[in-house]
Amino acid sequence: MAQSAGTSRQRIVVGAADLIRRRGLAGSTVRELAAHSGAPLGSTYHYFPRGKQQLAAEAVRFAGDLVSTTLERELAAGPVAGLRAFLALWRRTVIDSDFQAGCPVLAVAVEEPPAEGAAEAVDAAADVFTAWERLLAGSLCEHGVDAPAAAELATLIVASVEGTVAMCRAKRDIAPLDHVATRLEHIIENATRRDGGTDA
Amino acid sequence: MAQSAGTSRQRIVVGAADLIRRRGLAGSTVRELAAHSGAPLGSTYHYFPRGKQQLAAEAVRFAGDLVSTTLERELAAGPVAGLRAFLALWRRTVIDSDFQAGCPVLAVAVEEPPAEGAAEAVDAAADVFTAWERLLAGSLCEHGVDAPAAAELATLIVASVEGTVAMCRAKRDIAPLDHVATRLEHIIENATRRDGGTDA
Repeated sequence: MAQSAGTSRQRIVVGAADLIRRRGLAGSTVRELAAHSGAPLGSTYHYFPRGKQQLAAEAVRFAGDLVSTTLERELAAGPVAGLRAFLALWRRTVIDSDFQAGCPVLAVAVEEPPAEGAAEAVDAAADVFTAWERLLAGSLCEHGVDAPAAAELATLIVASVEGTVAMCRAKRDIAPLDHVATRLEHIIENATRRDGGTDA
Repeated sequence: MAQSAGTSRQRIVVGAADLIRRRGLAGSTVRELAAHSGAPLGSTYHYFPRGKQQLAAEAVRFAGDLVSTTLERELAAGPVAGLRAFLALWRRTVIDSDFQAGCPVLAVAVEEPPAEGAAEAVDAAADVFTAWERLLAGSLCEHGVDAPAAAELATLIVASVEGTVAMCRAKRDIAPLDHVATRLEHIIENATRRDGGTDA
């Protein structure tokens, strides 16, 4: 029973993350978020009593953790390997969806928080961005970049990858992601080669 | 009369751009887009017979042109001056709105295009991104960066600035924009100093 409840709940979260990365949060009702995973509306409110914000926050954290797991694993081989894995995830999302899907974390970050109650989804987005930045900054530090430059460069990586996914969707073209990939690789290579990253 | 009609129409476009940069397009009805500028709904359909997509596309182009005008003027003093002006615009948007407003171009880029009819708003977003990239790439080329590196770097600048505005909103903190600003300045200085930008 616990297994099955865990599975249904998880299925709703996965479905919600997929709909949010395609359509955004404002464009999706709780009913649609639930229907996307095939779950009945009643069970959605049972699992997520605070409604749309709670479900969206969990969907954002789920997507964030999925990326963090890959990022952490690939960063073990160095920051360029981590960058490549990070970009490969987004390339797959954009191409497999025929430019219809992007990042659910960005989607909730650019919408108005609810007029009443806690902005659970946007708070989750902030936490996910910080988690990705910390993983990247830690790896850059381990490879000789000083801490302030590593933190700045980590923000640049997350920001440019998020922005380029949106540009790819608008243009229905993967070129913006290729541009960013090439530049970021050069930048990381220079920063780690020069012990201190003052040239990155 | 022509003057007054031009003014009312323009007022609706300006209001729509403001609501879209706060709330996104899916979260705004045509009625709300019109009400935000104080215009009656009838006149909105009079000026924008194709409805929400047409109005949103014009709002995106209006916002894009406003940024392009500043960017073009400031790039005359070089790519770093242009970057600073570009970032200053976004810093003002984010801080003056108390982290409630971002970029209307990004907002429409991350939403689902309409199920039927032309995706006018997202097409406008693609054109605006390309216009900004061309202005930045042109300036980088004039300052000694070879054409492919200039194009890649221009995409990196637009993507990272768009991404960082979203990160600032989510975190309710201007730090991500400061991080990106510092790194991009170093990157542009290195690229233009080295005739060819192979190190940027």
